[in-house]
Amino acid sequence: MSLAYSPSKPLPLSQVTAWDIETDIAIVGFGIAGTCAAIEARQAGAAVTIFEVAAAAGGSAALSGGDFYLGGGGGTPPQKAAGFEDSTEDFAKYLTMAGGPGVDEARVRMYAENALDHYHWLIAQGIPFKGTYVPGKWLEPIADDTLIWSGSEAAWPFAQAARPAPRGHTPQMDGVGAGKLVMAILPARALALGVEAHFSSRVLALVADDENRVHGLVVRIDGTPRMVRARRGVLLCAGGFICNDEMLARYAPDAKATCPNPVSGGNDDGSGIRMGISVGGAAIHMEQFFATRPFYPPGNLVKGIFVNELGQRFINEDAYHGRVTHYMIRQPNDRSWLLVDNSVFGRPVTMPDVTIAAVGDTWNEVEKELGLPEGELVHTVENYNRHAARGLDPLWHKHANYLKPLVEPPFAAISYCGRDYGGSAFTLGGLSTLPSGEVLTPEDKVIPGLYAAGRCACGIPCRGDGYASGMSLGDSSFFGRQAGISAARRQA
Amino acid sequence: MSLAYSPSKPLPLSQVTAWDIETDIAIVGFGIAGTCAAIEARQAGAAVTIFEVAAAAGGSAALSGGDFYLGGGGGTPPQKAAGFEDSTEDFAKYLTMAGGPGVDEARVRMYAENALDHYHWLIAQGIPFKGTYVPGKWLEPIADDTLIWSGSEAAWPFAQAARPAPRGHTPQMDGVGAGKLVMAILPARALALGVEAHFSSRVLALVADDENRVHGLVVRIDGTPRMVRARRGVLLCAGGFICNDEMLARYAPDAKATCPNPVSGGNDDGSGIRMGISVGGAAIHMEQFFATRPFYPPGNLVKGIFVNELGQRFINEDAYHGRVTHYMIRQPNDRSWLLVDNSVFGRPVTMPDVTIAAVGDTWNEVEKELGLPEGELVHTVENYNRHAARGLDPLWHKHANYLKPLVEPPFAAISYCGRDYGGSAFTLGGLSTLPSGEVLTPEDKVIPGLYAAGRCACGIPCRGDGYASGMSLGDSSFFGRQAGISAARRQA
Repeated sequence: MSLAYSPSKPLPLSQVTAWDIETDIAIVGFGIAGTCAAIEARQAGAAVTIFEVAAAAGGSAALSGGDFYLGGGGGTPPQKAAGFEDSTEDFAKYLTMAGGPGVDEARVRMYAENALDHYHWLIAQGIPFKGTYVPGKWLEPIADDTLIWSGSEAAWPFAQAARPAPRGHTPQMDGVGAGKLVMAILPARALALGVEAHFSSRVLALVADDENRVHGLVVRIDGTPRMVRARRGVLLCAGGFICNDEMLARYAPDAKATCPNPVSGGNDDGSGIRMGISVGGAAIHMEQFFATRPFYPPGNLVKGIFVNELGQRFINEDAYHGRVTHYMIRQPNDRSWLLVDNSVFGRPVTMPDVTIAAVGDTWNEVEKELGLPEGELVHTVENYNRHAARGLDPLWHKHANYLKPLVEPPFAAISYCGRDYGGSAFTLGGLSTLPSGEVLTPEDKVIPGLYAAGRCACGIPCRGDGYASGMSLGDSSFFGRQAGISAARRQA
Repeated sequence: MSLAYSPSKPLPLSQVTAWDIETDIAIVGFGIAGTCAAIEARQAGAAVTIFEVAAAAGGSAALSGGDFYLGGGGGTPPQKAAGFEDSTEDFAKYLTMAGGPGVDEARVRMYAENALDHYHWLIAQGIPFKGTYVPGKWLEPIADDTLIWSGSEAAWPFAQAARPAPRGHTPQMDGVGAGKLVMAILPARALALGVEAHFSSRVLALVADDENRVHGLVVRIDGTPRMVRARRGVLLCAGGFICNDEMLARYAPDAKATCPNPVSGGNDDGSGIRMGISVGGAAIHMEQFFATRPFYPPGNLVKGIFVNELGQRFINEDAYHGRVTHYMIRQPNDRSWLLVDNSVFGRPVTMPDVTIAAVGDTWNEVEKELGLPEGELVHTVENYNRHAARGLDPLWHKHANYLKPLVEPPFAAISYCGRDYGGSAFTLGGLSTLPSGEVLTPEDKVIPGLYAAGRCACGIPCRGDGYASGMSLGDSSFFGRQAGISAARRQA
């Protein structure tokens, strides 16, 4: 019988003869969006039931660095303690630029105005922040510190338009991967508040009436399809679709072609998005994805310069690694190299066995060994060096902190070519929603009873080349909360 | 009452009390896809009814150049007459490269194997082809000739992988805009075959049962919603969504941001795509769009070189203008200029009042007048000239036919910056379909009774930077036919 259910087709309400489970709010997915939604909805007095396909809570957030992208309101306590002011306007401006022409301005505005409160909310749920700042270029704090530059804030063209501040806020935990701490604390909090959770439970389809109003869902528990009535609403918090090869081929083929390693807890199969589509929801910006071939730390490598197979530079290297990666994969034949001299050389922490494609005592030798057009790489390096000596980068405006002539042999080219490196990705496209989490049709009409948050929805991070670490957790936790609040307020 | 209908929500079959119109096949849109579908379905013996929102047939195809992208099978008669062999393998290889990592290989294969037959089919319907070839770089034939190089076939990297041949086939008509001839002949043919057509008739919604099988549609005729039963199927041939600003903002924001002029007959409002989505259809590659700021003819301008605001070249200028435009709009701040010398200078035919951003007796003067980083433009031109003198372009591999040192003053920079030029676009994303036209869910399951073709579907042209003139008409006419054939065969 369960074979008849599909995430792409709602079960008609008229075919439900009896409800097996009744609740106010049914949440699909016990990741960070579903957890934060559950906490808020429960605190608002609603009965909340979560269905999680894995055997435990966590989702893909549990595998993350645990970084939240926060700021505005003059600055969070860690920002202020480190001497950074961060106005809501600057924060909003940065997020708007990062979102590109498809940015959701209402969402950005709401997030920028409330991210400071959200920081305190996370603390109130039990997330510890030590409050200390670490300068430099990092993927995440490697000790138990809080605040890092986690995006392209200090880099051109963002820094020229919005006063930069570090905004990556990571919980206090020794070592990397604080997402597992976040996803231990928050789900425990939800359960303590009386949220009911079913694990190893696969949601098969929504239940909707003829008007596409959502009334519940069908979930397989212990091998049996169960009918779940959600009096106030269903919240889709089931993640993105980076684990679904068919969906990737249709919607985001460049992700698989360039950065084939999924960043996922394993269940980002797109079923949540498909359930939203099945009742008329619009799935937007589906081609967008976070991508990375991280080339720092060590931050010294940011003093190198990237060139493509024409010997041209193509990005300011002090931008966020995910932005740089999006520029890498656009280069002809997905070929690019980081040029370093002896004083700058290091092995990237995340891939110490990176391919050294060429080494030479002169840049001419490196150029020849790479087989690049005669004179182009040499011209690029010489010109870069001449300006860098004066602290300038007239081409790509890299910050003076990372400008240093590359003049100390031996010289090397570290390969970031697709065929040498691979890379990692997760999807950013998802259901179109209001900031309240209400799912929208392509005509921007609300689908009654349906909400989405996290990577099931398209949120603040809606463009791969504008991504910053912490945007997805920040967005998922904050807009998960909004979805929980909205659904709890709804009268069935 | 008609306000209650929405393309994003099917009318439940159970709510239809009586049918006002009954037919075998109901087609939404009397553009080229709908017309070709109607011809085939009618010839297969089906009763066919077309609903067209405009007052006459034609759609956006009527505004086009009338170009069909055809080849393979050893070559069409015009290709052979001009001395070009065109194997099916070369044709398929080119289309595959043009489609990028998201290409639909089954569709490419079917098209490449049958495009030669399709040429003869078009002739059988009454489309005249004079058969003559015009060498050089053209947007479309300006006299009544047939065959032009209408894509990037002869340009890197395509020519290196697939033996090139001109494949743009245009009907015999004096002057440009042969689409109006095509869309006079084909609809007349459909009507002569007994296809019934309703004009000024807006399709409001599909009619579907609880299993999302499609049974018909609701159409407003003379202000009244009418229930239409389609015993064998509904064909969505209603075009793309370039006229729908809300959909553009959600799905293809870069189109509006860079090339704001829609290429459309005015009714590409996305309603066909939304109807397909409403019964579970997947809409794919929705971010993709054809874009152009045409810079030729005259073909002499292809001998110029494009530079961005860093003074770098960024494309081989002999690629198709739509491909070059996609590379233009990716450059920093959407700023690029075509550098020409006195021997190459001309005004692009489609925009003779193009902005001349700088003129000088030396390239150094031009560089300064554009405000580019010192020495970069000069380096780019000098290096280009040095190699061009030997018939080489080691950076971007422009064909030797277009390589000529730019050494005759005065020198000029013609602006192709977004703020100076604007540009034109139409959307390429649409419903996911089998080559048969059957619409697919995100799980690649067929939706019974629903077909789509033309820019309602995502077809052969699935990537803006791989577009060639004639791809959309070729795809729409050929796969429109397949949809008509498939639907006619279906047993209700």
